[in-house]
Amino acid sequence: MILDICPSPALYPYYQQENDTVIVVDIFRASTTICHMLHNGATAVIPVADIDEAKRYKEKGYLVGAERNTRKCDFADCGNSPFDYTAERVKGREVVFTTTNGTMAIKQSEDARELLIGSFSNIGALISHCIERSEHIVVLCAGWNNRINMEDMLFGGAFFERLSSRRRVSFGSDSVRIAQLLWQLAKKDLLTFLQESDHYPRLVANSAVGDVAYCLNSDTLSVVPLYHPADKKIRAHP
Amino acid sequence: MILDICPSPALYPYYQQENDTVIVVDIFRASTTICHMLHNGATAVIPVADIDEAKRYKEKGYLVGAERNTRKCDFADCGNSPFDYTAERVKGREVVFTTTNGTMAIKQSEDARELLIGSFSNIGALISHCIERSEHIVVLCAGWNNRINMEDMLFGGAFFERLSSRRRVSFGSDSVRIAQLLWQLAKKDLLTFLQESDHYPRLVANSAVGDVAYCLNSDTLSVVPLYHPADKKIRAHP
Repeated sequence: MILDICPSPALYPYYQQENDTVIVVDIFRASTTICHMLHNGATAVIPVADIDEAKRYKEKGYLVGAERNTRKCDFADCGNSPFDYTAERVKGREVVFTTTNGTMAIKQSEDARELLIGSFSNIGALISHCIERSEHIVVLCAGWNNRINMEDMLFGGAFFERLSSRRRVSFGSDSVRIAQLLWQLAKKDLLTFLQESDHYPRLVANSAVGDVAYCLNSDTLSVVPLYHPADKKIRAHP
Repeated sequence: MILDICPSPALYPYYQQENDTVIVVDIFRASTTICHMLHNGATAVIPVADIDEAKRYKEKGYLVGAERNTRKCDFADCGNSPFDYTAERVKGREVVFTTTNGTMAIKQSEDARELLIGSFSNIGALISHCIERSEHIVVLCAGWNNRINMEDMLFGGAFFERLSSRRRVSFGSDSVRIAQLLWQLAKKDLLTFLQESDHYPRLVANSAVGDVAYCLNSDTLSVVPLYHPADKKIRAHP
């Protein structure tokens, strides 16, 4: 089993292999929020890349989540906070979702053999899923406008540690070594470590700091979100 | 003064700013070798992206260095080892040079306000140069086929440490934090640290391991290689 970590959506063509299991992560907050939606009973998440498309869905009566630059878009029902998506709101519904970075990462890798959505909340569930069926896994970090970020790389390091405790895992490239070393430095106090990162002050400035602890909590959900290329929707794997 | 680190040539569009001083690094070995050529008296280095162009220069009588996948190309006079470029060979001559990753990084950033070539060998000279004239510095890592690598990121961390000991330096993005943390882990024994990296076994397999120590030695050269966009040549800054 080989694990690689692609640090930016723009680099996926250089990390891609034919038999990829891709795990898209956008820890703050899109991928965490998608896991939360499906856990709370949304039947599917429809990721869309641009605002106009999201607006057209809204006009048709869909529940729409939309965020740009850490803020909820005015026209949308919800933003990018997991707490926007309560069971009362999403159970039995499809949710249209567009965010600054997360949906871009999904579009970039939608041709992968298997595309999953990852977060600390479902990391254990993902590992059990991958051990059963994956040979070459790529953690695809959503980053920030194609720049690399700390929190998504740290997830990659955590994923390596957990996976390699259960299977023999080879490094796909130096980015796994880098992520693993960062994770060793950060894991004792992830929250304090990430206060010195690009995105933390953006979350503070946009009153989203209350989401941080939830986004860093491991193994709170057992859902494995799987992208279905046929209809371009994300559903919980049965 | 702001320092950023772009971890792959393909990401430069996302790190680019108008007033950039870009420092292209390809520690193993192209950028180290360019510094060595100019130190040994080459009047200019002409970086070319493709093999056919290098062959045309060769037919015109130029001294040509060419490497692909860690090996010297058969048609060329020299490969990518600094030791190929002795003073006897290069003094007073222009050297045409093409390598797997280094020349690609130069082409990607040739529109920068100022484009320099960096290596551990001239790190102190670069810092003195940048303190005089730069506001926004981007260390552009050549990487490996657009994937990020350890040794170029480590240079970025070393550059941050040295620069911030002389000036107040702001982090351009999380990649500087990442590089700085890696450098703290590696700096006591850089050679041992890098034996666990993607490129080290490639150097061993291609009998280039003798170049490693030279490439990791700091402050052995005082040259500052500067790219001249008008004629697309790299010369020592006077």
